[in-house]
Amino acid sequence: MSTPLSDIGCVKAATRILGDKWTPILLRCIANTESVRFCQLQDNADGINPRTLSARLVTLETDGIIEKNPLSSSARAEYRLTKKGSDLLPILTAMQAWGERYR
Amino acid sequence: MSTPLSDIGCVKAATRILGDKWTPILLRCIANTESVRFCQLQDNADGINPRTLSARLVTLETDGIIEKNPLSSSARAEYRLTKKGSDLLPILTAMQAWGERYR
Repeated sequence: MSTPLSDIGCVKAATRILGDKWTPILLRCIANTESVRFCQLQDNADGINPRTLSARLVTLETDGIIEKNPLSSSARAEYRLTKKGSDLLPILTAMQAWGERYR
Repeated sequence: MSTPLSDIGCVKAATRILGDKWTPILLRCIANTESVRFCQLQDNADGINPRTLSARLVTLETDGIIEKNPLSSSARAEYRLTKKGSDLLPILTAMQAWGERYR
């Protein structure tokens, strides 16, 4: 019985991000290509409100999970996962497998 | 970009359980011995209110994460992880490692 209480925060950090309704699907979409644009994310997360999508992207960028690269040719931006973000993917996959098996 | 929206629920199922403040530490405590009693959990999750602990245990039992085995010799019960519960441990470990690395 050796889990120090301080470890609670470490788990919480990951669940806070992955526990959001849209974030898992957004992370998958961003992970599946080298980079992705806002409208592509909107198409893939069908049903997401543009305002919600925008807010999630800002949060993920602030948290260092994704990075935004403005396209030089236009006002549009592209998003890609950082190392911190791509390190979440195996956890996401494991959670998904667990959920599929047991729910 | 192939994550169906239905998969959101699978991830949600796991984050709903692991996202709770106390559940990760309770799962660790229960996992670290063959079975554990209420008072032992209370000692190890120092700071948990007995009413909160009781509520969490009921939820975890209802969710099929732990099982309660009444001790024949007394009124006290012991708790242990089910297969469903122990299958959460690698996810918990991965989340903890991610949180330690990046927070």
